[in-house]
Amino acid sequence: MRGMLAAVVVCLAMIPAGDIADSGKQSGPAFSGQALVRPTDYATWPVVGTSLGLTYSDHPQSGPGAFHRVYMNPSAYDQFLRTRSFPDGTMFVLEEREARQKTSILRGGFFEGRRIALASSVKDRQRFRAGWAYFDFDNGARATATAFDDSECHSCHVAHGQQDSVFVQFYPALRGGD
Amino acid sequence: MRGMLAAVVVCLAMIPAGDIADSGKQSGPAFSGQALVRPTDYATWPVVGTSLGLTYSDHPQSGPGAFHRVYMNPSAYDQFLRTRSFPDGTMFVLEEREARQKTSILRGGFFEGRRIALASSVKDRQRFRAGWAYFDFDNGARATATAFDDSECHSCHVAHGQQDSVFVQFYPALRGGD
Repeated sequence: MRGMLAAVVVCLAMIPAGDIADSGKQSGPAFSGQALVRPTDYATWPVVGTSLGLTYSDHPQSGPGAFHRVYMNPSAYDQFLRTRSFPDGTMFVLEEREARQKTSILRGGFFEGRRIALASSVKDRQRFRAGWAYFDFDNGARATATAFDDSECHSCHVAHGQQDSVFVQFYPALRGGD
Repeated sequence: MRGMLAAVVVCLAMIPAGDIADSGKQSGPAFSGQALVRPTDYATWPVVGTSLGLTYSDHPQSGPGAFHRVYMNPSAYDQFLRTRSFPDGTMFVLEEREARQKTSILRGGFFEGRRIALASSVKDRQRFRAGWAYFDFDNGARATATAFDDSECHSCHVAHGQQDSVFVQFYPALRGGD
């Protein structure tokens, strides 16, 4: 346990200075070597958007699909609302949950069941050639994750994300105005 | 403007002491006389659950229904995770949004469109006979809202809410374990 705490302290010390540090909040990307450390406190971060069953494929899916919740680290969120741009040190966490139905008094509709996936993206123009990198924590089973190859996630994000490779068009907290 | 600021200061001074005050965060229920003041900072509160199109009626609805997001004030959220009970000063905010589809690269699924409703519930056993009261801010058009009669919301919450009149069964952040 003491070793784990020491490791966490070392990781926090590796958070990029500047954009994150000036808010006084520590929540944000932390690295262990090349690997991103799984955040433990993301459940209290601002949720920028939620969706159900989003698909980019023409093949119809069976059932409602999964809930996606996208969280953003608080200091980057605050900064984005002021500047309308994503600072280095921006971190999104994507949490996927089963869509559950017809329990309790429900006759229709879907609510969030158990978590089935946990992933993340981070902006750091010094660290990542493409500016952003993408990580999969295997639904929380991995304490750290290494970045996907740019061809796996980034190519779609850069082509279809409305602003700076981010799908702002699906996130009411970042779109603004509605 | 100065009058409004003064009113806000008065309202904040009326927050129940104790449960809310000891966390150092001011976010929580504030009253102006009998009326609940619409919170302006709830977008950064923890989201305890999201759903799409929940209905308790046997009559089928047309379309997907609306997204519901339920936020909880941070100090009560922290306290609930420690004690598993809702302190006086607990405040939930319910935000409803249109379900939007097939824009951008989407072929299936739903994401959150514009906000269509904003409501709240508050626990305060000194203030409310039933312990909880329920409020409608008319999608943000009302700066304050008076409580519904207990027969309008509370009767269903107390009958079907899994814990202390709260629909904990639909909120993964409060259910725990998944």
